[in-house]
Amino acid sequence: MLIEKLNWRYAAKKMDPARPVDADKVERILEAIRLAPTSSGLQPFEVIVITNQALKEKIQPIAYNQGQVVDGSHLLVFAAWDTYTADRINMMFDLVNAERQSVNEGWENYRQMLLSTYPQRDAQVNFEHAARQAYIGLGMALAAAAFEGVDATPMEGFDAAQLDTLLDLRAQGLRSVAILPLGYRDTAGDWLVNLKKVRRPRADFVREIS
Amino acid sequence: MLIEKLNWRYAAKKMDPARPVDADKVERILEAIRLAPTSSGLQPFEVIVITNQALKEKIQPIAYNQGQVVDGSHLLVFAAWDTYTADRINMMFDLVNAERQSVNEGWENYRQMLLSTYPQRDAQVNFEHAARQAYIGLGMALAAAAFEGVDATPMEGFDAAQLDTLLDLRAQGLRSVAILPLGYRDTAGDWLVNLKKVRRPRADFVREIS
Repeated sequence: MLIEKLNWRYAAKKMDPARPVDADKVERILEAIRLAPTSSGLQPFEVIVITNQALKEKIQPIAYNQGQVVDGSHLLVFAAWDTYTADRINMMFDLVNAERQSVNEGWENYRQMLLSTYPQRDAQVNFEHAARQAYIGLGMALAAAAFEGVDATPMEGFDAAQLDTLLDLRAQGLRSVAILPLGYRDTAGDWLVNLKKVRRPRADFVREIS
Repeated sequence: MLIEKLNWRYAAKKMDPARPVDADKVERILEAIRLAPTSSGLQPFEVIVITNQALKEKIQPIAYNQGQVVDGSHLLVFAAWDTYTADRINMMFDLVNAERQSVNEGWENYRQMLLSTYPQRDAQVNFEHAARQAYIGLGMALAAAAFEGVDATPMEGFDAAQLDTLLDLRAQGLRSVAILPLGYRDTAGDWLVNLKKVRRPRADFVREIS
């Protein structure tokens, strides 16, 4: 059951550096992210998968020295588009046409509507919109990792500007929004592992209008 | 397999109004959202579940007349906190202490750090941050719905200000960010159901640094 796995998961604070995550599990987590739906299907983000230990060690101080950055075997960086451009919109609509081997008038009208609105908007508005889509992918990644029995600790606690510089993201029109180490909990070394998972009770979180 | 289910899912354009989603499936989807991890564990959003048909009919024109709003049996509204306040931060930290029946010095220092930064920030910055967390929940909901074999069509195409007024959200410090009808695809009536799902190829979406 997915719910049992979601209850099993938590934000591991100490990962075991001796237990790397199998490549096939990482692959399925990445595929879940790739399959995530996004606004207008634009997929306005990329995922950088870092296994290079020296690079992880450079990222650790940028992420307030959180140990999972170096102890997890894979560090995923979610990098959102810094804005929407005509090229990026056309790239995705052209890809859809090529894959479906058809051109649809309604779809083409929709493309024109996006082209006439998104690129003209303030870049920060576009970036915030793209960042939200990346977070759908982050949610998918967390569900998929739990499903695979892999620990994953989502982090916003890092200096995005410094990480962008280190990975040369800005020059590619990308901005890091979240990082996600993948690994396995080091039960003996993790202060959080035995503490109760706390969420607001359903009555304070869900409202029904029937 | 979760990946097979994620490949099965798509954004149903026509839902069958005669096939409501079973309550136990809806419950598990809501529980997946409730279990979603969020920044500092604050869960800065709520979910409104609308089954009232008259209310769904009032929402449909606000959502550009998309039929799934009325044809899906359940309409989920993701409503993010409009800002972070001291009360909201304390509510969550107090809840954690009560549930864990302990007070931790590091945790209390962390509370003070949030109290000294979040409430003072611009409300729009806080809202955008809260909205991203709601999108983690949205990603979880989409994964859970697919896992349950339930169709779910995420929508940003609605007038948030009008929906907030209709549901009286602003007075409660909430702002709608996404809506998600749940139901079952009407295969005969859906133009999208037989079209290929298109995503950027892995090589254009994932970058590896090993």
